[in-house]
Amino acid sequence: MDLMQGVEFSHWLFNNYLENKNILVDATCGNGKDTLFLANKIDSNGKLYAFDIQKEAINNTKKKIEEKELNINIDYINDGHENIDKYVNKKIDGIIYNLGFLPGSKKEVKTEKETTITSLNISLDILAKGGLIVIVIYSEHEGGSEEKAAVLNFARGLNYKKYNVLHYHFINQKKNPPEVIAIKKRNGIK
Amino acid sequence: MDLMQGVEFSHWLFNNYLENKNILVDATCGNGKDTLFLANKIDSNGKLYAFDIQKEAINNTKKKIEEKELNINIDYINDGHENIDKYVNKKIDGIIYNLGFLPGSKKEVKTEKETTITSLNISLDILAKGGLIVIVIYSEHEGGSEEKAAVLNFARGLNYKKYNVLHYHFINQKKNPPEVIAIKKRNGIK
Repeated sequence: MDLMQGVEFSHWLFNNYLENKNILVDATCGNGKDTLFLANKIDSNGKLYAFDIQKEAINNTKKKIEEKELNINIDYINDGHENIDKYVNKKIDGIIYNLGFLPGSKKEVKTEKETTITSLNISLDILAKGGLIVIVIYSEHEGGSEEKAAVLNFARGLNYKKYNVLHYHFINQKKNPPEVIAIKKRNGIK
Repeated sequence: MDLMQGVEFSHWLFNNYLENKNILVDATCGNGKDTLFLANKIDSNGKLYAFDIQKEAINNTKKKIEEKELNINIDYINDGHENIDKYVNKKIDGIIYNLGFLPGSKKEVKTEKETTITSLNISLDILAKGGLIVIVIYSEHEGGSEEKAAVLNFARGLNYKKYNVLHYHFINQKKNPPEVIAIKKRNGIK
């Protein structure tokens, strides 16, 4: 793709539609690209949580963040994002998911539809009013298209009175470039 | 909608993915909002074409642009966008469509699927390499959903070797907020 990248678009959403930046979460920190992006967005008295089930990903992310010498409050959590509520006991303002496998790895470990849907349900529960969930979906690998279908199905079913759900995807491609789903919790609800 | 607006997104596309800004076109200038946006993007030696089938729309747009006293080369054309090649005899770098009726009007005049598809075919022909077509689709009015379906069908069928086609839409809403389709002509083709 020589244009409109899902990752860039996901950052645009955070830049434009994130109302508060107190508590942010990277659900799948991978090599830390999004974690670094979020680290630069967070309020000075806020907190960032970076999850990944792979120790290698946590190490890579930690290194990337520490190099920048940012003065932020960040927890690195080497656990799956389906356990997010074991570690985060506050309302969150924004969370980003990258679904697929760790870039550069052997693709043995990847996100799975069951744990992803579990995690999304938890995120909806702990999302603050006006909060934003952004999901970047890679689906070329084995199981990827099933996970994408499950997430789309989940997202389509969300109550329009409570959430606005956006889908950003390429519709004429032979391969599957990354797609984005954004879920925003409306402000006017409890 | 309290968030992610199609119109804002369409401008983001022009801000980020328009490679050249020499010849730009507003296919449906309406009240001139997009025309003004494009007028501020155009190169100093470039040219902007503003089409609308309604005289009222042309007058509103002209007024809006003239108020800003921009030093640009602009043609106002009171004709339908299906006749674009009667007036534009150069390769175009970017074109924007707003499909629906003139905001504030009596909804009697609106874009129609046949002329829209005719116009899109012409735009593809005269689009420069790296050029961008952005279509903002309103579909709540009578005939709107048929026009949307026709445009989506057209867009999905475009050759992926020649074009990247993006769809931005809300997937859990009761009503139909504006959707966006972006077509980018790949650089590596003749």
